Amino acid sequence: MTLQDTHISLAHGNGGRYMRELIESLFARLLKNPNLDIQADAARLPELGNGDLLFTTDGFTVQPLEFPGGDIGSLAVHGTTNDLAVSGAIPKYLSLNAFIEEGFEVAQLERIVKSIADAASAVDVHVVAGDTKVVRRGEGGGIYLATTGIGLREGRINLGMGMIRPGDKLLVSGPVGDHGIAVMLAREEFGLRGDVKSDAGSVLPFTQALLDLPGLRFMRDPTRGGVATVAHEICRATGLQVRLDQAAIPVRDPVNSVCEMLGYDPLFLACKGRVVAAVAADQADVALGRWENLPGGDMAALIGETRQEDPYVILETDLGGARILEELEDDPLPRIC
Amino acid sequence: MTLQDTHISLAHGNGGRYMRELIESLFARLLKNPNLDIQADAARLPELGNGDLLFTTDGFTVQPLEFPGGDIGSLAVHGTTNDLAVSGAIPKYLSLNAFIEEGFEVAQLERIVKSIADAASAVDVHVVAGDTKVVRRGEGGGIYLATTGIGLREGRINLGMGMIRPGDKLLVSGPVGDHGIAVMLAREEFGLRGDVKSDAGSVLPFTQALLDLPGLRFMRDPTRGGVATVAHEICRATGLQVRLDQAAIPVRDPVNSVCEMLGYDPLFLACKGRVVAAVAADQADVALGRWENLPGGDMAALIGETRQEDPYVILETDLGGARILEELEDDPLPRIC
Repeated sequence: MTLQDTHISLAHGNGGRYMRELIESLFARLLKNPNLDIQADAARLPELGNGDLLFTTDGFTVQPLEFPGGDIGSLAVHGTTNDLAVSGAIPKYLSLNAFIEEGFEVAQLERIVKSIADAASAVDVHVVAGDTKVVRRGEGGGIYLATTGIGLREGRINLGMGMIRPGDKLLVSGPVGDHGIAVMLAREEFGLRGDVKSDAGSVLPFTQALLDLPGLRFMRDPTRGGVATVAHEICRATGLQVRLDQAAIPVRDPVNSVCEMLGYDPLFLACKGRVVAAVAADQADVALGRWENLPGGDMAALIGETRQEDPYVILETDLGGARILEELEDDPLPRIC
Repeated sequence: MTLQDTHISLAHGNGGRYMRELIESLFARLLKNPNLDIQADAARLPELGNGDLLFTTDGFTVQPLEFPGGDIGSLAVHGTTNDLAVSGAIPKYLSLNAFIEEGFEVAQLERIVKSIADAASAVDVHVVAGDTKVVRRGEGGGIYLATTGIGLREGRINLGMGMIRPGDKLLVSGPVGDHGIAVMLAREEFGLRGDVKSDAGSVLPFTQALLDLPGLRFMRDPTRGGVATVAHEICRATGLQVRLDQAAIPVRDPVNSVCEMLGYDPLFLACKGRVVAAVAADQADVALGRWENLPGGDMAALIGETRQEDPYVILETDLGGARILEELEDDPLPRIC
C-alpha cells in the first residue's frame, strides 16, 4: 500500500482517515519492527536487562534536507543514538516526531523515512513510538524531526566531564568539519561546489571500543560548535586548561580549502560521526590504536590535553605559537543539524 | 540570572555561548529537578522499579500558543503524560524538544517554559533531557514542541483495544469539545467570542481510579478527531459495532452553541483532559461512580457500547433515530494541539 496523494495536506495531520493512511502506508510500513504498534498510545518496552537506563533527545532542522552523505532522516537517527553511545550506552529504542509542512512532497518524505529506517537498522535500534503533525505552508522548513532515545549502559561504566584529570589526553576519532562543509556546499549559496561528504554516521563502534579502558574519562560527539565547543565545555566544567594542537587535528584538504576561502575555522564546524574522548595519558596510545584499527578510523588522532593551569582553551598553532580560542558566539553555519 | 536578549536569534541555536545562556538561564532554571543535568549527553534514569516500561511521544503546534485554560507548554506535558496514563502507567520522565522561530519573544518563551514546569510538577514528572533548535524567521510558527515520556505500569495491567468484547460499555470522563472550541475562539477568526476554557489537564486521577477493575478493557484520550475518532479506532481494531448515544454525550452549552453556529460536530473536536474507557457492562456503573466522585468528574457519563453487529460507528440521535457516523476526513480545526 502506498499513499495516493503526492503532497502533504493539513488533513494528513487531523487525526482522521488521511492521517491514518499516512502513518500506515508510509511511516509504519517503512519503520516496521516487532515493538512498533501504531494503535497503542504508548509502546511497552521489552525487558531491557541489567544496567543504567539512558535517555536523550535531539531536534533536526538541517537545510537542505538531503546532502552528500546523508539527509535529515539519517541525521536524526545518528544524532540521538550517538548521544547514547558517547554516554557509554548501547542504543535500544527511539521515538520519532515529524513536523511536516503543508505541500511537502510525499516522494521526498518517503525517501527520508526510508533513510530513518535504514539508519535505525544499521545501529540496531527500533523506532517504537512516533507522532506526525502538519503545519501550514510557510510555517515550516519542509520537515523538522525530533528523535528521543533510550539506551542501556553497563552499571560499572562511569563517564563524565567530572572524571577528567589534569594531564589527560584528548583524542578525536576522525577528520573534523566534513559535515558542516558538506551541508554548506549543498546549499550552493556561495557559488561553490566541492566533493565533500558528510561524516554523518554511527559512532557506536568507536565508543564501544574504549569502554573497557579504566582510563577512559569522557566522550562527546562534537556536533553544533564543533571540537572547539567540546573543549570549552570541558574547560568550563573542570576548571582545567584545555590545550589543542592545531597541527594534530585532522582536517581533510577540501574542507581546509573551503574554510580558507570563506574564513571558517574547521574547529567550530559540526561533525555528525566523530567522537572526542578524554583518556588518561598512559592509555592514550592504546585508545588511539583501537580507533585506528576500526573502519573509518585511519585518521583518528591525539589532538590535545588538559592542564592544571588557567582555565582557557589554548590553541597551539601550526607556527609554534599559542593563542586563546574563544567560545563560539556568532553562528558561522546555522541549521547544520 | 535571566537572559539579556528580548528576542530569540539564530545564535541561540548555534551550540555556543548564546545557546548555553538560553538553556542555563531559562530552560534549566525553570525546569530544575534532581535528574536534569544539562551538561550530559544523555540522562541516566534512576531505578524505575518493577513493572512495564511505557514510552510515548507527541508533537505540539497549537495556534494560538496561549489560550484560555492552557498554552502549548501545558499541552505538551499533559498530552504526553496522558498517553502514558491511558495506557495504565504512571508518568515518570519527560524529554522536551523546542523548535523556536527566530524573532520569538523571550518573555513569551519564559511563560511557556514556566507553564511546562508547573504542569510537570503537578503531574510529578521530571523533564530530564531536552534540545533547542532555532529556525529562521518565516520557517516556524513561533514555537513547536515535542515531548517524549517514560512511564511505569504494574506488570499485571493488561489493557488494549484487543481486550474489548461485545456488550462492553463506553464511558467518557467529562464534557467533550471544550479544548477545540476554546482554541478556535482564541483565534478570533469568526468574530466570535465566548467563555469556554480548554479542558487541557492531566487525566491521571481518572485512569488510576479504574485500574483495579478487572472489567477495564481499554482507555484513550480523545484528542485529534475527538470521541468519534476513538469510536472508529475501536470499530476498526475489534470488528465490532460501536454505538454512541448522542443524548448521553456531555457537551457544555456554550460549546454546543458555537458548534451549531459554525456547523461543527462536538464529537469530532479535540479534548485534552478527557478519557474514554471501555468497561465490561457489569462494572460500568462502578467505573462511572468512581469518576463522578473525582474533582472535575461530575459530568462523566456512559455514552455507548459495543455490539456484535456490522462494524460501523452508529450514532443514536437525540430524535430516536440512528445514523452511521463517518470517519473524519476534512479537518474542521487544524493545529488544535
